[in-house]
Amino acid sequence: MLNDDVVKFCQGANYAAFTTLFDDGTPQTQMMWVGCDDEHVLINTEVHRAKFRNTSKDPRVTVMVWDAENPYSYAEIRGRVVATVTGDEALAHINELSQKYAGTDYSNAIQSERVILKIAPDRQLTR
Amino acid sequence: MLNDDVVKFCQGANYAAFTTLFDDGTPQTQMMWVGCDDEHVLINTEVHRAKFRNTSKDPRVTVMVWDAENPYSYAEIRGRVVATVTGDEALAHINELSQKYAGTDYSNAIQSERVILKIAPDRQLTR
Repeated sequence: MLNDDVVKFCQGANYAAFTTLFDDGTPQTQMMWVGCDDEHVLINTEVHRAKFRNTSKDPRVTVMVWDAENPYSYAEIRGRVVATVTGDEALAHINELSQKYAGTDYSNAIQSERVILKIAPDRQLTR
Repeated sequence: MLNDDVVKFCQGANYAAFTTLFDDGTPQTQMMWVGCDDEHVLINTEVHRAKFRNTSKDPRVTVMVWDAENPYSYAEIRGRVVATVTGDEALAHINELSQKYAGTDYSNAIQSERVILKIAPDRQLTR
């Protein structure tokens, strides 16, 4: 289960630094929207992106989510991508995220296929 | 050399998501102050911290720095810690960073020893 503080960070309109690992173990980090359910941090991307390909091969990721009003207050969730969801559920989820951050449905072109990465936590740190 | 856009991100009072790798290759990410010289992104930490111990063993890191006013505008610098500096230079540098972000010299307790991590870029991406 995610702890209450982590849920609060992920439910707010807060940004996330999402890190995945290339084949050789080199990390990459990108700015992402973020959400959660009770057990997982949720990241929504597309299947042609390096971050998706990376997690298909090595599921270890870390997600740092900070208070949009105060970057000194943040959570780091280290964990693994334990499931992925495509199709209508992934489309509904990107619209939900877009409503949270931008106040409208998602209007960017979808280049391949949207996918939800479900991240189960191994460690949950808050500062 | 760092490119001009990256220098601009690092010179501003912008925050950084700094990622290092544990012994087993698992990533960790933390919120950090950041600076630069012409060739390196500079992170200032202490020698007892996991992030310092991590980079002593595996120098690969990534630094994502975003515009404090607009998180959709950011740079990612993937690279390696190629040098470290302790002593007076590291103390002067943490005061310089503190002046940039907080407007005062650094007043937190120093638990071990301050150290500058000099990060040479392998890839510099801006969005």
